[in-house]
Amino acid sequence: MQDWINRSKQVLPLQEEWKKLAQRRLDEQTRPQGSLGVLEEVISRLASIQKTDRPHIENKRILIFAADHGVEAEGVSRYPREVTRAMVLNFLNGGATVNALARHVNAQVQVVDVGVDAEFQKHDRLIPAKIRRSTRNMTQEPAMTEEELSRALKIGWDLVHQLKEEGVEILGLGEMGIANTTAASAMIAALTGIPVDSVTGYGTGLKVDERNHKVQVIQKALDLHRPFLKNPLAVLQHVGGYELAALTGAILAAADLSLPVIIDGWIVSASALAAVSLNPRIKDYLFFSHQSEERGHGLILGELGVQPLLNLKMRLGEASGAALAMTILDAAMKIYHEVATFEKARVANAKS
Amino acid sequence: MQDWINRSKQVLPLQEEWKKLAQRRLDEQTRPQGSLGVLEEVISRLASIQKTDRPHIENKRILIFAADHGVEAEGVSRYPREVTRAMVLNFLNGGATVNALARHVNAQVQVVDVGVDAEFQKHDRLIPAKIRRSTRNMTQEPAMTEEELSRALKIGWDLVHQLKEEGVEILGLGEMGIANTTAASAMIAALTGIPVDSVTGYGTGLKVDERNHKVQVIQKALDLHRPFLKNPLAVLQHVGGYELAALTGAILAAADLSLPVIIDGWIVSASALAAVSLNPRIKDYLFFSHQSEERGHGLILGELGVQPLLNLKMRLGEASGAALAMTILDAAMKIYHEVATFEKARVANAKS
Repeated sequence: MQDWINRSKQVLPLQEEWKKLAQRRLDEQTRPQGSLGVLEEVISRLASIQKTDRPHIENKRILIFAADHGVEAEGVSRYPREVTRAMVLNFLNGGATVNALARHVNAQVQVVDVGVDAEFQKHDRLIPAKIRRSTRNMTQEPAMTEEELSRALKIGWDLVHQLKEEGVEILGLGEMGIANTTAASAMIAALTGIPVDSVTGYGTGLKVDERNHKVQVIQKALDLHRPFLKNPLAVLQHVGGYELAALTGAILAAADLSLPVIIDGWIVSASALAAVSLNPRIKDYLFFSHQSEERGHGLILGELGVQPLLNLKMRLGEASGAALAMTILDAAMKIYHEVATFEKARVANAKS
Repeated sequence: MQDWINRSKQVLPLQEEWKKLAQRRLDEQTRPQGSLGVLEEVISRLASIQKTDRPHIENKRILIFAADHGVEAEGVSRYPREVTRAMVLNFLNGGATVNALARHVNAQVQVVDVGVDAEFQKHDRLIPAKIRRSTRNMTQEPAMTEEELSRALKIGWDLVHQLKEEGVEILGLGEMGIANTTAASAMIAALTGIPVDSVTGYGTGLKVDERNHKVQVIQKALDLHRPFLKNPLAVLQHVGGYELAALTGAILAAADLSLPVIIDGWIVSASALAAVSLNPRIKDYLFFSHQSEERGHGLILGELGVQPLLNLKMRLGEASGAALAMTILDAAMKIYHEVATFEKARVANAKS
């Protein structure tokens, strides 16, 4: 694991130079200075991540990491495990919500099977990388071995290197895995010290007593592994999931390669929190797409000190928030590349 | 004016039937029920406004109503009046921020000159409907005569009828007019009773003392006209503007014709508030695109009991927020029309 901790340290701070160049161009456009608010911050950050005053995000990729979870056996989800498999097929067939949103923003979707409890036939959009058919039950043993954690991290890492070589300019990250809100809540509680109850939500429609049970399950797992949860990677190993670890590997790689990343909702935020806990600079490479309705997401975004782009009370996952946020980034790019300058349009600027 | 008050009363409540049909279809799609949050509300409301279970918003139009303001002479803006004219030309040439955003969402932009203090040559995108070269100075006399108010309302009303006949399916409303944040703040203070200071912002970059001066100017105008501000139309006449009145007329017509409307930011919210004050049911036909950075916009949205779709700290006007929000509505429509059902995708639904 030391290897992964070293890799995370290689991520460099953003260079102010590109941010300033982008802001100068924005200030020359026919608008009162600063009047685009968050969109201006998005533009100047894209410029500094991509190290250019002409950022581009036309080549978009959405990766959905999918896996099952041993803790599902504890009755923490209203959906059976087979839904992970069915939704993967739905993603491959283009029938899911994320597919509609990906078409809206002209992004390619790929699904990475890192641990689904099912076998899939070959498919153009499927990247087979199964570590095991589901993690182990975290209430009884670590969710994965140390070796499995390294494999999961490396799957995300290698894949993002490949996308970068393919010319991908922006990456949206999502997930699918029945019971993975449980793993994400456990990770977040372990990483932040926030009480389990404050970061455990209703997942996909739990009732009040079902959520209370979920809180107890998470607490049991944390109590069992407490002595071992000494760093973010150990947290991923003991109470995380294969998709959560692969996502962290993907985030580390994207930051290392200066590839901007859009984080989906609750689950992907847990992986992002692990990455940022390894190196706070990684945060500068991430765009948080939306504030999920899942309980405690606002707390986590606050902990990270970030503002989400959208707040539409969504709680779906599957990269739906990341895909939707891509249209906001596209809009920002369109403004940056197309709006006339004061000089060109002969519009008088403010009285000095 | 009685004529306009009667027209506003013709707007009918939305029919629950279409909302329910849309929600049923959403619930059959491969997602946990309700997991799209605000997007589901958007979809079911579009269905009920358009009175169909297959709403469509592909034919989009953005109207920018432009006018100058007599109160500009009081030094309430950092920009000279000639900027209204220059920005109108910028809109016509496609060089402004709203044009880039309109191209992003594939919407047509038209500019309506209801009172710019300049003459324009013919242009495909320009609708000439000048009432007068600028309103009068509201600190000394009513901003417009009663007859001018009727003309302004009718310009908006007639234009929206024409767009409906042309097959427009969704309307985005914006404005341009140096000093019109002053008129909008005066209207909002008069309509809501909220103190002027709480609803007067920094406009396009005022300094603290300049804003304080703006508050005093507005207070002076309100003190002068107080006895006459007995209904929303009287408010428009005395302290509004030609573009603000035309926007109210457009909103009344759109609701009457079951055409969904996207409200831009601070200024258009003032016109919407006037319309909703005439008939609260009109609110159901409106989508509030974003919460502006202009001071007090959150208060007004709260007063109206609405949630804006975006909160990106924008403060530009010119329909930029309305145009940007169109991509969110498009995304919602894409989901509604394209996502597979549980039955078709053979995905198991929640355990009952």
